[in-house]
Amino acid sequence: MEIALSPVTAVCCDAEFQVLEDATIHIENGRISYVGPQHYAPPFAPDETLGGPHLVAMPGLINTHTHAAMTLCRGYADDMALEPWLHDKIWPYERNLEAHHVYVGTMLAIAEMIRGGTTTFCDMYFFEREGVRAALETGMRMCPGAVLLGFLPQADEKIAAARDFVREFRGAGDGRITPFLAPHSLYTCDAPQWDKIIAVARDTDARITTHAAETRREVADVTAQWGQSPIQTLHKIGALDAPLLAAHSVYTDERDREIMAATPFFVAHNPQSNLKLASGIAPIADYLARGIGVGLGPDGPASNNNLDMWEEMRLAATLHKAATLDPTAVSARAALEMVTMGGAKCLGLENEVGSLEIGKRADILLVDFDKPHLTPRHNVVSHLVYAAGASDVHSVMVDGKWLLRGGEFRTLDVARVCQESEAIARDLVQRA
Amino acid sequence: MEIALSPVTAVCCDAEFQVLEDATIHIENGRISYVGPQHYAPPFAPDETLGGPHLVAMPGLINTHTHAAMTLCRGYADDMALEPWLHDKIWPYERNLEAHHVYVGTMLAIAEMIRGGTTTFCDMYFFEREGVRAALETGMRMCPGAVLLGFLPQADEKIAAARDFVREFRGAGDGRITPFLAPHSLYTCDAPQWDKIIAVARDTDARITTHAAETRREVADVTAQWGQSPIQTLHKIGALDAPLLAAHSVYTDERDREIMAATPFFVAHNPQSNLKLASGIAPIADYLARGIGVGLGPDGPASNNNLDMWEEMRLAATLHKAATLDPTAVSARAALEMVTMGGAKCLGLENEVGSLEIGKRADILLVDFDKPHLTPRHNVVSHLVYAAGASDVHSVMVDGKWLLRGGEFRTLDVARVCQESEAIARDLVQRA
Repeated sequence: MEIALSPVTAVCCDAEFQVLEDATIHIENGRISYVGPQHYAPPFAPDETLGGPHLVAMPGLINTHTHAAMTLCRGYADDMALEPWLHDKIWPYERNLEAHHVYVGTMLAIAEMIRGGTTTFCDMYFFEREGVRAALETGMRMCPGAVLLGFLPQADEKIAAARDFVREFRGAGDGRITPFLAPHSLYTCDAPQWDKIIAVARDTDARITTHAAETRREVADVTAQWGQSPIQTLHKIGALDAPLLAAHSVYTDERDREIMAATPFFVAHNPQSNLKLASGIAPIADYLARGIGVGLGPDGPASNNNLDMWEEMRLAATLHKAATLDPTAVSARAALEMVTMGGAKCLGLENEVGSLEIGKRADILLVDFDKPHLTPRHNVVSHLVYAAGASDVHSVMVDGKWLLRGGEFRTLDVARVCQESEAIARDLVQRA
Repeated sequence: MEIALSPVTAVCCDAEFQVLEDATIHIENGRISYVGPQHYAPPFAPDETLGGPHLVAMPGLINTHTHAAMTLCRGYADDMALEPWLHDKIWPYERNLEAHHVYVGTMLAIAEMIRGGTTTFCDMYFFEREGVRAALETGMRMCPGAVLLGFLPQADEKIAAARDFVREFRGAGDGRITPFLAPHSLYTCDAPQWDKIIAVARDTDARITTHAAETRREVADVTAQWGQSPIQTLHKIGALDAPLLAAHSVYTDERDREIMAATPFFVAHNPQSNLKLASGIAPIADYLARGIGVGLGPDGPASNNNLDMWEEMRLAATLHKAATLDPTAVSARAALEMVTMGGAKCLGLENEVGSLEIGKRADILLVDFDKPHLTPRHNVVSHLVYAAGASDVHSVMVDGKWLLRGGEFRTLDVARVCQESEAIARDLVQRA
């Protein structure tokens, strides 16, 4: 299937941050074979051409941190302190989760992500194989984390199983699956467990993703348990010798930030979750100034409560202006980079996705600007960051294959997924 | 036109905050004649019935502070410090604004507001009559402010004209228009001008809306000019003897808050504008604890950059949790109240709109919950606040008349409004 997107406005998100009016994009064998001015485009006989004066093409959005199947507990408990929220609501609800539930919950998450233009997601949840199955079936790109909670039974066997998981799924789905190792945190896995996980990462060349420095309490607990801050602990145990993706990183001191800047440390910033859970505001403007890599994530739908990357992008561009009292902090461009190339770098996929450039995989979305809230069209980048939303997404492709075309799902039955999710949720509520 | 909404889930936003499953709403002569269980509904022979298992009815959203026609400069300038933003970009652009432009820009704003479920807006912009014309034509409910910028020529004549404006338009459009007096601020109108405006407000029984305590710099400037803080100045000059609606109120001290709680003071909270312009974070949790009335607004589309009240509601429910490090601060219910009854009280319209109750005007919107991001349906109120968005709005009515029905505009030609707005914007850019 060869496809031409023409004419479109192309927001390339490349290093030069080119925005091309009247552009053409050619897609061959799942990759971008041309992106540039319409009148310079080489001869091409596509199977299909899609374009129009109101369509803006951009790289697919990259979600660097989520717990996808927690769609099933969306809205089940809000506005509570962390301890009763976990102990009285979320854990009793999750206790009866079965593999099939995670498959359906991930399908629901994928439906929502596709509808809103997300093409890649880094996931961290139980029954990893079920999440991967949903991604393989629907055509999504996924970085599934092999989750390790050290206090659960048979932790050592699970670390061995994680090694198998990484080897089995690396490159599955024509290269769409990139497994990660996902030790939950320093406060839920102990030193011997972390040592083993780091060894597996080294052996398999898989990256690690974890939670780090999300709350004040976590920093205090980790400091008491390990002798220094979460970031300094990760550094000390060798977890930062290779690239590591840390979710949140809200509370860091000067020494932490020096380490983050000097190592291949990446931050998955989850601004809305950090607000809703009352964690705080991460010092993202400072991280960017130090050259620390930053991507965005919605976190799980129990603490957000949706998977809308446009909201995260908008918050990233606005929240830190107020936090620093500097209206120039985190520009629209910087926020758009976080959700595209910044996210790709967090996942080690920067040579494959994250920008519209020749040779890259065709993970592309089209945004429909024929809307009152995107009028007049003074500045396309500004509108993408400060005015657009998930529902403005017109079409979405991954590897040159349509997942959404003109608002219609192409690889999943959304009505059935919603219906099954409702039934499972009702059952889990009754059993909680 | 008599209409039945049935079956719907009715989120009433009344004092008891009732949420009724399988409800019926009857609308006669523009007012709600019944809202309650479907099986108790009295005999009724409507001209039209609309309902379904996925439709949630709620009061129309109330926007308590905006500069609607600034849609025309949406995205024209962002990520700049206030002074160059105003002096180099916004003012040169606005300099050539004509009456007709304000009409078209307000029509564009109304299109966006209707699409997103806003049914009432309190506006503050030049050429007030043109804004009112747009509201009258489209069927929106509006509180137009008669704007006074003291440094502009003929300020005294404009105060006299404001009196005429209030008298001419009060109750226009079958009661949909409620004029306000809108002195811009304490730093742009002087003491004699404020005295005259307060006298006009007393004579005409119109309310005053103004900007107060938006930025640290404003507080310093007003304190230097008037001798005390903005809130204390408003109190001292008698502006708080009658209800006053102040936009922003980000920077207030203990004495200010005592005054706010003891007087008929209302805050139009604009969380996203306060973030984007790097103003700061208003102490809304404290205001609510003191019983101070709070509504929400997006501010103008040059500083937001849309008019989406769902984003403001979501931010109101999340931002203050992080600001206070308290996950129970500003609950979903509290945020939903701000955008319904809270907003109605800000505008003195609490006996007419803001809730689904018998006798109230039928300003109602239907939200379509048949969406992945609103599934599963654990909690309708949580989903409205934490997961829903403008595009989920299915239908909107004001005074029992459809403005949007199944996503289609009924009272304006949206394609034409967008086209005219683009042409005006291009022209203003060239002349700036």
